Amino acid sequence: MITLGIDIGSTTSKCILLRDGKEIIGKSLLVGGMGTDSPKKAMDTVLKECEITPEDVARTIVTGYGRKNFEFGDGEVSELTCHGLGGRFVFPELRSVIDIGGQDAKVIVLSESGRMSNFVMNDKCAAGTGRFLDVMATILQMDIGDFDACAAKSSDPASISSTCTVFAESEVISQLANGVKREDLIAGICSSVAARVSALARRAGVMPMVCMSGGVAKNGAVRRALSESLDMEIAVDPLAQYFGAIGAALYAYRQAIK
Amino acid sequence: MITLGIDIGSTTSKCILLRDGKEIIGKSLLVGGMGTDSPKKAMDTVLKECEITPEDVARTIVTGYGRKNFEFGDGEVSELTCHGLGGRFVFPELRSVIDIGGQDAKVIVLSESGRMSNFVMNDKCAAGTGRFLDVMATILQMDIGDFDACAAKSSDPASISSTCTVFAESEVISQLANGVKREDLIAGICSSVAARVSALARRAGVMPMVCMSGGVAKNGAVRRALSESLDMEIAVDPLAQYFGAIGAALYAYRQAIK
Ligand code: SF4
Repeated sequence: MITLGIDIGSTTSKCILLRDGKEIIGKSLLVGGMGTDSPKKAMDTVLKECEITPEDVARTIVTGYGRKNFEFGDGEVSELTCHGLGGRFVFPELRSVIDIGGQDAKVIVLSESGRMSNFVMNDKCAAGTGRFLDVMATILQMDIGDFDACAAKSSDPASISSTCTVFAESEVISQLANGVKREDLIAGICSSVAARVSALARRAGVMPMVCMSGGVAKNGAVRRALSESLDMEIAVDPLAQYFGAIGAALYAYRQAIK
Repeated sequence: MITLGIDIGSTTSKCILLRDGKEIIGKSLLVGGMGTDSPKKAMDTVLKECEITPEDVARTIVTGYGRKNFEFGDGEVSELTCHGLGGRFVFPELRSVIDIGGQDAKVIVLSESGRMSNFVMNDKCAAGTGRFLDVMATILQMDIGDFDACAAKSSDPASISSTCTVFAESEVISQLANGVKREDLIAGICSSVAARVSALARRAGVMPMVCMSGGVAKNGAVRRALSESLDMEIAVDPLAQYFGAIGAALYAYRQAIK
């Protein structure tokens, strides 16, 4: 039996095709989230690549920020439920998910049995989210994908005293003008995001095993700073961006076999 | 006897020359605050314009954000004390000062006798400060000085759902692209600042008579929105930007006659 999970975020759309609730047979990720045609395209892409027709799919569940506005699913489930389910699918021992997305950050804590036991979210302030990194990448005229390698060269990370994205932006501009090295600035920028998110994680009662999901999980510099700040190892997996979609596909499977 | 008060803010420097603790005989305001040569220039300007030599000044008191780094004063006093003193000098019945500056906002509540009884400040978040207006002025390619007249033309103020400056910036950009009128956007922007500051004011226990000080006091659209939101009249005076400097000059006078 094949089920489909679709996770429509604020900036990306992800799909997972699951066979018998056990095996991931296909995945797709497109830039563009709610309000764009990316969710539909991501769905078409994964079906096409796996040579599966919509009729072959037993059930489709939609999750994420944009789940209410998508007409091609059989139902929708909150992203919190899906992140827990998807996280446990990848890491059976998982207790905490730190998800830093394009414009929010959330920390989900799971009970031993895998149910969500706590949840803390910031979707009001751009600091400590991917948006903070975007703003800084624009100033530095760099690709966020290069932050990691660049920060690794830093021997003296810049200290950025403002938490606020807007004030931190001015600080970075003036430090840049004062000759502070790019790599030190980027290391400081990544630490700033980590500091903000680790406060959120502590508030949620983060506990090991911890993994990161969301677009920022790929950023090793943020991950290392977060790991240091929390004094916990933080796992990451190429599938981390798909937790929501995996969870949705699993949920679809459990409903379908009922 | 002549005393001098200097208020060094984050974005402007203000000076007041006071005769006998009663009469303002000169004032100056220069763009450029802490870390620039504006404080010294503002001092030289007001002395020169009034044809007063430094030797004629009995005492000079410095206040404001940058007061610790200015070497030409005889002493320094917190801006809170000075705003209270200066506010009462202009409005003898004053109980609350709402000061929206270039990058912070503060609400000072005075007792009946004029002492500070409460104080709430935001200097961490650009929302609800002059910086929010600056960011928006840049997007709209407008001068902040024109906001007031432009907002007055609005018949249908735009609603801006994000409080965060960064997220609100994106909202304004997309509303602009969707053809929302400039005047409606500006009215919405001013309301956003007012909403943020009125929450601060309520937290401080704001009570009449209220006046606005700081650079944003000149912005009638913010003031009107704030007045509506608090359901209180809000006085403003051309001297409102000088409260800190007036207070410092008064303080200098009181010390000098001791
Ligand atoms: S602190 Fe800065 S980034 Fe955060 S809500 Fe305020 S303006 Fe936005």
